Amino acid sequence: MPVVVTDIKRADPQAAKALAQYGVATVHEAQGRTGLMHHRLRPIYKGAVVSGTAVTCTLAPGDNWMIHVAVEQCQPGDVLVAATISESHSGYFGDLLGTCLKARGVTGLILDAGCRDIRDLEALGFPVWSRSISAHGTVKEVLGDVNVPVSCGDEIVRPGDVIVADDDGVVVVPRLQAGAVVAASQARVEKEELARAKYQAGELGLDLNNMRGRLKDKGLTYLSQAEWETGQ
Amino acid sequence: MPVVVTDIKRADPQAAKALAQYGVATVHEAQGRTGLMHHRLRPIYKGAVVSGTAVTCTLAPGDNWMIHVAVEQCQPGDVLVAATISESHSGYFGDLLGTCLKARGVTGLILDAGCRDIRDLEALGFPVWSRSISAHGTVKEVLGDVNVPVSCGDEIVRPGDVIVADDDGVVVVPRLQAGAVVAASQARVEKEELARAKYQAGELGLDLNNMRGRLKDKGLTYLSQAEWETGQ
Amino acid sequence: MPVVVTDIKRADPQAAKALAQYGVATVHEAQGRTGLMHHRLRPIYKGAVVSGTAVTCTLAPGDNWMIHVAVEQCQPGDVLVAATISESHSGYFGDLLGTCLKARGVTGLILDAGCRDIRDLEALGFPVWSRSISAHGTVKEVLGDVNVPVSCGDEIVRPGDVIVADDDGVVVVPRLQAGAVVAASQARVEKEELARAKYQAGELGLDLNNMRGRLKDKGLTYLSQAEWETGQ
Amino acid sequence: MPVVVTDIKRADPQAAKALAQYGVATVHEAQGRTGLMHHRLRPIYKGAVVSGTAVTCTLAPGDNWMIHVAVEQCQPGDVLVAATISESHSGYFGDLLGTCLKARGVTGLILDAGCRDIRDLEALGFPVWSRSISAHGTVKEVLGDVNVPVSCGDEIVRPGDVIVADDDGVVVVPRLQAGAVVAASQARVEKEELARAKYQAGELGLDLNNMRGRLKDKGLTYLSQAEWETGQ
Amino acid sequence: MPVVVTDIKRADPQAAKALAQYGVATVHEAQGRTGLMHHRLRPIYKGAVVSGTAVTCTLAPGDNWMIHVAVEQCQPGDVLVAATISESHSGYFGDLLGTCLKARGVTGLILDAGCRDIRDLEALGFPVWSRSISAHGTVKEVLGDVNVPVSCGDEIVRPGDVIVADDDGVVVVPRLQAGAVVAASQARVEKEELARAKYQAGELGLDLNNMRGRLKDKGLTYLSQAEWETGQ
Amino acid sequence: MPVVVTDIKRADPQAAKALAQYGVATVHEAQGRTGLMHHRLRPIYKGAVVSGTAVTCTLAPGDNWMIHVAVEQCQPGDVLVAATISESHSGYFGDLLGTCLKARGVTGLILDAGCRDIRDLEALGFPVWSRSISAHGTVKEVLGDVNVPVSCGDEIVRPGDVIVADDDGVVVVPRLQAGAVVAASQARVEKEELARAKYQAGELGLDLNNMRGRLKDKGLTYLSQAEWETGQ
Repeated sequence: MPVVVTDIKRADPQAAKALAQYGVATVHEAQGRTGLMHHRLRPIYKGAVVSGTAVTCTLAPGDNWMIHVAVEQCQPGDVLVAATISESHSGYFGDLLGTCLKARGVTGLILDAGCRDIRDLEALGFPVWSRSISAHGTVKEVLGDVNVPVSCGDEIVRPGDVIVADDDGVVVVPRLQAGAVVAASQARVEKEELARAKYQAGELGLDLNNMRGRLKDKGLTYLSQAEWETGQ
Repeated sequence: MPVVVTDIKRADPQAAKALAQYGVATVHEAQGRTGLMHHRLRPIYKGAVVSGTAVTCTLAPGDNWMIHVAVEQCQPGDVLVAATISESHSGYFGDLLGTCLKARGVTGLILDAGCRDIRDLEALGFPVWSRSISAHGTVKEVLGDVNVPVSCGDEIVRPGDVIVADDDGVVVVPRLQAGAVVAASQARVEKEELARAKYQAGELGLDLNNMRGRLKDKGLTYLSQAEWETGQ
Repeated sequence: MPVVVTDIKRADPQAAKALAQYGVATVHEAQGRTGLMHHRLRPIYKGAVVSGTAVTCTLAPGDNWMIHVAVEQCQPGDVLVAATISESHSGYFGDLLGTCLKARGVTGLILDAGCRDIRDLEALGFPVWSRSISAHGTVKEVLGDVNVPVSCGDEIVRPGDVIVADDDGVVVVPRLQAGAVVAASQARVEKEELARAKYQAGELGLDLNNMRGRLKDKGLTYLSQAEWETGQ
Repeated sequence: MPVVVTDIKRADPQAAKALAQYGVATVHEAQGRTGLMHHRLRPIYKGAVVSGTAVTCTLAPGDNWMIHVAVEQCQPGDVLVAATISESHSGYFGDLLGTCLKARGVTGLILDAGCRDIRDLEALGFPVWSRSISAHGTVKEVLGDVNVPVSCGDEIVRPGDVIVADDDGVVVVPRLQAGAVVAASQARVEKEELARAKYQAGELGLDLNNMRGRLKDKGLTYLSQAEWETGQ
Repeated sequence: MPVVVTDIKRADPQAAKALAQYGVATVHEAQGRTGLMHHRLRPIYKGAVVSGTAVTCTLAPGDNWMIHVAVEQCQPGDVLVAATISESHSGYFGDLLGTCLKARGVTGLILDAGCRDIRDLEALGFPVWSRSISAHGTVKEVLGDVNVPVSCGDEIVRPGDVIVADDDGVVVVPRLQAGAVVAASQARVEKEELARAKYQAGELGLDLNNMRGRLKDKGLTYLSQAEWETGQ
Repeated sequence: MPVVVTDIKRADPQAAKALAQYGVATVHEAQGRTGLMHHRLRPIYKGAVVSGTAVTCTLAPGDNWMIHVAVEQCQPGDVLVAATISESHSGYFGDLLGTCLKARGVTGLILDAGCRDIRDLEALGFPVWSRSISAHGTVKEVLGDVNVPVSCGDEIVRPGDVIVADDDGVVVVPRLQAGAVVAASQARVEKEELARAKYQAGELGLDLNNMRGRLKDKGLTYLSQAEWETGQ
């Protein structure tokens, strides 16, 4: 039975908004290298960085009806996450729906299928992370669900989770961990800042991370070219 | 027997030229969602929008000879459509041939294979929609055909058909339908303009398109989170 | 036994540096259409052109440890070439390692796997040619080799070879041929300049390359549309 | 924090076992066309048909440690479902682990990664549905989870759900719906039996399903070849 | 306007039937290396060899309605060719439709999309060449065309053309050339028989085809290992 | 300058022959998880297991000329390794060349491109590991090299190395290590035999490999379902 769940709990909105500034790679590391969607999801234009609370929906092949249903469940600060139940490359989303979502304050769309009108969407400033770019239109015949857990980009997304997306891809942060991940991301950024300064000054990761002993223990051997050739 | 057909009939040049302004997604919709090439064909640089009448050719694997033959059959306002008879990712086309086609007034190239010199081609302002980007050179040994119907991007293109290409992909408009598709595209643009204004004002597709009754008839159910969890 | 070869011989540094100006397509042609890596290797941002002498390493799946080891073997003017021993799309490289390599004067990275922090790397001006873009972090557990011959992008790269990379892809020039390939590239550029001028003036490749006789000998036939239809 | 959940609830074992006889296509239809994994998951040999209750685990790239941990949580009649958190094609599973799982009464493995020893596994009679076939060995360094909900083959699998797999692919049946899906599958099989008999007798789907009126209403037109050519 | 063309002209039925015995590779060569579909089309089971006259149809994404319409246009000895207008991997065809087509004397199906019930179809002896294997069901909502020229597997198929399909793939023979291609295939088989005997006796292609002179002219050089190493 | 190296050194023939019995997965492990070709190389039929000394060649796109040249350099017990210099899916090899190679005592072909006549090759008993299956014919126009190091399946193969291939894929053993790898493979097989017996008796890898302590140290936690749910 297709359902729309109407009163989902969302992650803390301030934490959800704050995660954008750290970016996908940092957030993914900060929460223990989990939650990263498959790299097939790519931004339709470069430079966009968004975060927000997930409203989810499932789509039948070549059918974008549930996006229209899902829009009504969106609030400012949400990111819409649209999963397909069978691989499809039709163009489920274009600039009209982009206008509609932007008007509601939605900050972006994660779409495990095709997107169209990509030039208009860039002009509009509504970013989409999609599997492909295709103008092929869709129909409105088959129901799906809104605001149930979905599998999108090989990750589970639950309604109200936080989505962070940038040029590196898309990561999901569980709803109740958003605050903790903000803190961990901030700590990681600060630590990386120190490392970056040392790298800029010419230090090596081998020294910075004390790797030489462990490399030797594992058996790494340094040879001259002449020694290596003798061993071949 | 490899042939070059020399006096093809072309679509009305004004209609062919006019279609560029509507873009691929609109033209594809306006002609009943037909004619869209596979999304594997992507522009080598962003922002180009072209339309024109098709001159077609077929290419053997790793052999670009027939592009040279096809050039002579091109007129100002044409788009060259180059199909391969076996999947190939060599670089069949670069800036020299781009210079040659631009000098003849050709507006773009659709190439179901690899393209090279993409930076020079962008500087030159000659757009290509290709399957891949590869510098691998080709030979000139095997004949193909020019100006016969070809299968390019999983669509049939007949000489003289109209090609429209932009960041969303490539669409083919049958030669004799170009004028009708201009009219239908114009009508669609006007209709979309109205819809866009309403979406900007915050209206929902559910209301704009009277979807609520049909969704209910199909069995869509709205539940609270609590109700949904009870049902699991 | 995992080894690091420490005193590799490098191609002539002036030749290595000079090759960048010719670009991948020209260098590939100038050395007889050899050495071109697979087109799956794409730049993480447009417009970068680099050349340099190769330092090589091999990487285990999801493990970027040997990049840290390889950095120490790099000198100004080198390009790091990182091959994987099993297809992997994790993000082996980001802006910290980019900072480190840039500080050592390395001009770019060829990475037959995933890359992350692509926006930061563009801001930093450190170009990477990679197989995919992914934020997924890697571990440091399994050894590989540094400065042995590797297979990267379906081509053999030997330490000290020259790498040239731009928007068209990546090409390898054998160490001892760098000077000869500079000369051949220069000759090719000059010859192409002449051809380009003729193409701009409207000449055809058919005439410029004397193709008409050979096409006729191979059996190419020119038909009118009416003649062609009769034959069908 | 990586966890192993030890006392999961399983679907009714008789229903779980019974579903194998209906096969993937029927079960998928019987539960409303949901739950089908992506077609990238293919059996390593033909002809196997299994069903069972899911024990789930997540795997790090190139690391099969958690399969060893998951084995201990398996009971006779289970199917192990191993998801990866980043696309990987290493060979996570071979005949030793197959022997181990078979000894515990596990009926099959769903592995969204690479599998090896496929000839031995066929001889052993332990079927695997995998994304690729690769001999590349894995390490045991990074933890994951056992018996938490996972995304495998673009579908959510919860511990205790029923998995059905055959030559058509893999489908997931929610734990509490197993009995109902058995009933719906049986009903569908009986209905299809009737249809099959009619098709064998030469009836058409157009008549069997009363499609002619609806096709006409949608505008389908029957033309002679001569009429069609006139319209072109 | 979606149409069904009802009285197509078919290739000579004896020639159409005879082509199966030569197989795809021979027929493809015999007609000058044209007409071969893309290798993404693979048989759902090994060992089937069919030929027949094409009935064509186009399918919307995830919609198999037009297969039902096309069945009625099929006669004994036909092969059904089903093209999609947008890449799709749903399961458009299963054993019920297989039963129906077999009852009408159709010898096989070429389906540029997904197929299901592959075990049943093998038991039934109805071969399908498809792009993927997927159990995902389709709907019956959107019209397409029957018996118009289609692009399937990157080749144009016109109604009444001959289709030949075996373990090597699928090839299209134009309707009016079927007889000539039978003759050319027979000639090729006889010629290959002679060559095969010579190869079995240990002759080399270099001698059988007089290649040595041409290889030398092109610059092929034979070196000893020692000479080669000196040149590196 | 294209060359044929005529007097390559081969691995010890007895060791080369002996490696087939261990299979790809064992050999790959026995030599430290190196040398495995990419999993895109698949056998054209199941069940073949071969090993032998490598004769190598490179192929231009759509051009199989150098296979004919390479045949002459083959001896009984060799495996021919054919690399392409640009991705290509044409059918470079069929049953005539298969007959020729079999007559010379060659045990198999590794072909990083397309293969045809797969049914005939199976009947002949000549196994091929290829990237794709395609009937598309090739030409004989462009030279390559024979018996130089090549990159095939993302691995370097040097003439005289040992190739082992079975249903799991293809692995390369360096020429001088063949004997040592036989010994290591034998040791591994014996060790695995012991493990297999213990697995059959129901032992767990956790105990067999003493993993429990290390898992605990890394932080793996066992929870009941109730405890886990509380933590979410």
